[in-house]
Amino acid sequence: MFISFEGIDGSGKSTQARRLAAALAETGAETLLTREPGGSEGAEEIRRLLVEGRGERWSPETELLLFTAARRDHVERLIRPALARGAHVVTDRFADSTRVYQGLARADLRTLVEELHRLTIGIEPDLTLLIDIDPATALARGQARGGVEDRFETLGLDFQRRLRAGFLALAAENPARFRTIDGSGSADEVAARVLAALP
Amino acid sequence: MFISFEGIDGSGKSTQARRLAAALAETGAETLLTREPGGSEGAEEIRRLLVEGRGERWSPETELLLFTAARRDHVERLIRPALARGAHVVTDRFADSTRVYQGLARADLRTLVEELHRLTIGIEPDLTLLIDIDPATALARGQARGGVEDRFETLGLDFQRRLRAGFLALAAENPARFRTIDGSGSADEVAARVLAALP
Repeated sequence: MFISFEGIDGSGKSTQARRLAAALAETGAETLLTREPGGSEGAEEIRRLLVEGRGERWSPETELLLFTAARRDHVERLIRPALARGAHVVTDRFADSTRVYQGLARADLRTLVEELHRLTIGIEPDLTLLIDIDPATALARGQARGGVEDRFETLGLDFQRRLRAGFLALAAENPARFRTIDGSGSADEVAARVLAALP
Repeated sequence: MFISFEGIDGSGKSTQARRLAAALAETGAETLLTREPGGSEGAEEIRRLLVEGRGERWSPETELLLFTAARRDHVERLIRPALARGAHVVTDRFADSTRVYQGLARADLRTLVEELHRLTIGIEPDLTLLIDIDPATALARGQARGGVEDRFETLGLDFQRRLRAGFLALAAENPARFRTIDGSGSADEVAARVLAALP
């Protein structure tokens, strides 16, 4: 199984990805926990170009090409070989994050996102778990974590609301692949919902 | 005018690009001399990912995405603004190098090269000057320069022959844009041929 976790900053998806990977590994199955952008050695180097420096360092198009290059490396060096060995792959973010983030950055980029995905990536997760949470709750929860606050400060609460709407719209367009998980409550409560959502 | 120089390693195209840019600047016109991969600040950083490290560091597809990201940055940050100001732009390599190098790396990549170019680059030079030279001559000439010898050693004389054939085929497919320049003889002789080939 190839499973991706998606959601806004502070939704708890990284925690849930880690917990699900641990639960799968406990069954004795080989399980790979990974993340994007990054994951493979080369993709992590491209990630550094993406996350360091000024916000306007790259145009949305250049940024999208770099995300796609990182994903290509991640898929061919890590994800596909693991799936070919029969391992489970759990990833914290995948192509849906690009669809939502770049599509919000500029609506006309959404077509380019899909074209590049079709031409160079191709693969989709078997299952995408969208950890859905109200951005105000995520922000309050994130008080303890500098990283989440920084992102909210940089992008704004309104942007996080639009991201959430973007993820929910994507889930509605792809009902066979997506499961939307209520991300409120404790990590244990959310983890129980994740396990209940598995096929 | 947007002018690109193309050719195999050791063909003398970098020298000729520099000389033509100097000749255009002498007429009083603003002239930008640049190169690929690289050219703009961001593209030079992507270039470092491409030229450093092991040869098999990136797959041909990932490499192509990185080249395209670098070119997108170069075009939008440097080339298009210069052309919009009415400047001449002379570049040492552009998209034709990608067409030939990646197309030789794997024939089926040629379609992907064109698709990515169409989706994210679009622009072509007004004039492409192909400095054509026999690879054996280029190698002999390159004895004085470590860089060229290294490339010949890494890629092999036969690969340079195939590159030359690739460039000549591209010139034949695009007669309105390409001028093929005999690259034999002294730099002065070749420079005179370049000037004679200008429209």
